[in-house]
Amino acid sequence: MSKYHQEIRAARTAQKELARRGSAERNALVEAVASALEVQQAAILSANQKDISANPDLSSALIDRLRLTESRIQAMADSMRAIGALPSPLDSPAESWVTESGLAIHRVAVPLGVIAIIYEARPNVTIDAAALSLMSANAVVLRGSASAKQSNAMLVSILHDVLDDFQLPKELVVLLPAESRAEVDELLAMRGDIDVVIPRGGKDLIAHVVSQAKVPVIETGAGVCHLYIDASARPDMANTIALNAKTQRPSVCNAVETILIHENWGDDYIVDLVQALQHAGVEVRGCPRIAALVSSVTPATEEDWSTEYLSLCVSIRVLSSISEACTHIETYGTNHSESIITENREAVDFFFAQVDSAAVYHNASTRFTDGGEFGFGAEMGISTQKLHVRGPVGLRHLVSYQYRIYGKGTIRT
Amino acid sequence: MSKYHQEIRAARTAQKELARRGSAERNALVEAVASALEVQQAAILSANQKDISANPDLSSALIDRLRLTESRIQAMADSMRAIGALPSPLDSPAESWVTESGLAIHRVAVPLGVIAIIYEARPNVTIDAAALSLMSANAVVLRGSASAKQSNAMLVSILHDVLDDFQLPKELVVLLPAESRAEVDELLAMRGDIDVVIPRGGKDLIAHVVSQAKVPVIETGAGVCHLYIDASARPDMANTIALNAKTQRPSVCNAVETILIHENWGDDYIVDLVQALQHAGVEVRGCPRIAALVSSVTPATEEDWSTEYLSLCVSIRVLSSISEACTHIETYGTNHSESIITENREAVDFFFAQVDSAAVYHNASTRFTDGGEFGFGAEMGISTQKLHVRGPVGLRHLVSYQYRIYGKGTIRT
Repeated sequence: MSKYHQEIRAARTAQKELARRGSAERNALVEAVASALEVQQAAILSANQKDISANPDLSSALIDRLRLTESRIQAMADSMRAIGALPSPLDSPAESWVTESGLAIHRVAVPLGVIAIIYEARPNVTIDAAALSLMSANAVVLRGSASAKQSNAMLVSILHDVLDDFQLPKELVVLLPAESRAEVDELLAMRGDIDVVIPRGGKDLIAHVVSQAKVPVIETGAGVCHLYIDASARPDMANTIALNAKTQRPSVCNAVETILIHENWGDDYIVDLVQALQHAGVEVRGCPRIAALVSSVTPATEEDWSTEYLSLCVSIRVLSSISEACTHIETYGTNHSESIITENREAVDFFFAQVDSAAVYHNASTRFTDGGEFGFGAEMGISTQKLHVRGPVGLRHLVSYQYRIYGKGTIRT
Repeated sequence: MSKYHQEIRAARTAQKELARRGSAERNALVEAVASALEVQQAAILSANQKDISANPDLSSALIDRLRLTESRIQAMADSMRAIGALPSPLDSPAESWVTESGLAIHRVAVPLGVIAIIYEARPNVTIDAAALSLMSANAVVLRGSASAKQSNAMLVSILHDVLDDFQLPKELVVLLPAESRAEVDELLAMRGDIDVVIPRGGKDLIAHVVSQAKVPVIETGAGVCHLYIDASARPDMANTIALNAKTQRPSVCNAVETILIHENWGDDYIVDLVQALQHAGVEVRGCPRIAALVSSVTPATEEDWSTEYLSLCVSIRVLSSISEACTHIETYGTNHSESIITENREAVDFFFAQVDSAAVYHNASTRFTDGGEFGFGAEMGISTQKLHVRGPVGLRHLVSYQYRIYGKGTIRT
């Protein structure tokens, strides 16, 4: 058994200690992390600078994800105070009933136990994931990116100091090394020691986790999100939403990657939309109809329809019915977020019933699929699976339940 | 792509057709299965007799599981009427709220989609699993035991006839052949086509499914359940519950396999309990203390503590504290059902907080962990995992949810 395996075993014992404390103490713990981040700002920035210097070959987009600044550290501290102010998911009232045989059954919320999260460059995930786990009385095992090694080590050492102030074991937050996928694979095989693993990152990471995991997984992240512009869509609204969903933050999973348009919407509107996108710096790849309408459009390949660009690029396809749009989404989508722009209420109902995604929108941008926007507070990611949790994974989803049953010598006859 | 792969793909399309029908129609469908089972009784018995004749080498316990009788077919029909009378889990009211940005979010229940179930000899599972799936607007893929081949084929052909009467596609119920584990492995790899697989059977089947599955799994079944007799337990109550939990139906997962006893309970009581169990035909395997008290007790080996006997055999261990009992359960248990017999309320609270099982009981038999007993109606099995569903898997657990979000041209700023 490796050193890390032993630490993860210790995390389970530590989790039980945390679960015995009251919710108020867990809230105070997370709020104390906020203050500690503020006090240790210089040390965090210095560790982060070492990571940036050690990774001169990273793209500017990755450097931007990795870099911490005074305002980003303040945002992390603010996030800790927001999480610390949330009600505990363990305090929701038990559902209770008495059975025919006279047993009193109480269904109570209980922590999941030990949560593992595998993530990429952004160091704020280290803090958010730890805070959400601790608030719900879970232990957390963190496996971040090698490029954020020093930043993560510093953040975890701050978390350990706060745990120590509360006389809680440091094994509540275990930071795994990020040297190779061997640690990941060891983690994924630790049935009984890890209660759930949450991969948060690109398609390859998620595919690897899903194919290797013997522990339960909550899949997050991959979003090939669609905007469907129906025949009755108002052109101003369609353009505003398309621009927002594609350009407001193209690098995130809830940004739109493909726009589907009903052929009866109108050629002039289509041309206006394509030109508005291009004007905003978006590369447009289109079906033959789009390419015929606007000569500067690159023809889309079959691969485009299933590509999560995560950049200022969009594919556009004209279709002859809402059914075809739903079939396209079923074929190429990732069950994340899709939106219909229409003035026709029947079309909304049809689209919502046909499209099997976590979030479906009418006359709104897909960019709202987010724990904060939904009112859940911070999130662990966006689940694209159907079991346990779908859409934003917030504090309320990091619990299971237990049936606590009271008898009077009751036996089954 | 195999023939079965194509049928499973067709199941997804068929599921959407079923979802478009109203709940009343799905209730009527399941009730119609009840009548069809009654009408086709002779044909079912004849198919079942072929299975029994074709498997002369099965143990009498397995033959008993496989055998259908008039009264068992009537019980299946009664179960259909009971399931058909349950409220649809899709009709529970949506949770709705308006976000700060003005979006109206409705969280609505939706079917899981295509549910696969892998099970062993009992043919009634074929009917129960299909009814629960159809009532919740899911398609079902059934993979039963080779020994029940003719019975399952007859039952599925009856289901197909009823689907046809309702002008629904027969692909809503797909019966896979049970020739080899190759079909199981193909099923377990069908990510995107199967929404969840539920293995229902022995330890080996579950271990195989968990290690091979690329699709989400709801683990069910294995139960090494414990009864802990605390120092203050009333001896009459302890004996009654121990006998019920061990002998009322020893072959099921919620029967007790190990009894843990506090050393201060009293030697006379221990001897009485062991003798009462032996008198009821139970083989007792004990720790050295038990073996010293009753000479006819077989010494328990390390392996006994983690064995699901599923028969009239029990292991008994004397321990010096409730903490040791909780540690024993954590080490050897399967997180299924455990009971504490005590007159001490603090001991109950400690036991319930420490023991991480789906169901924990005070002064009651573990035999109550069952969908029917809980008031859920029929069940797909007993989940021993913590995500999505824990304990009895009933109709209400065969759904996911979708966020349906209404804007007015709403964009993210």
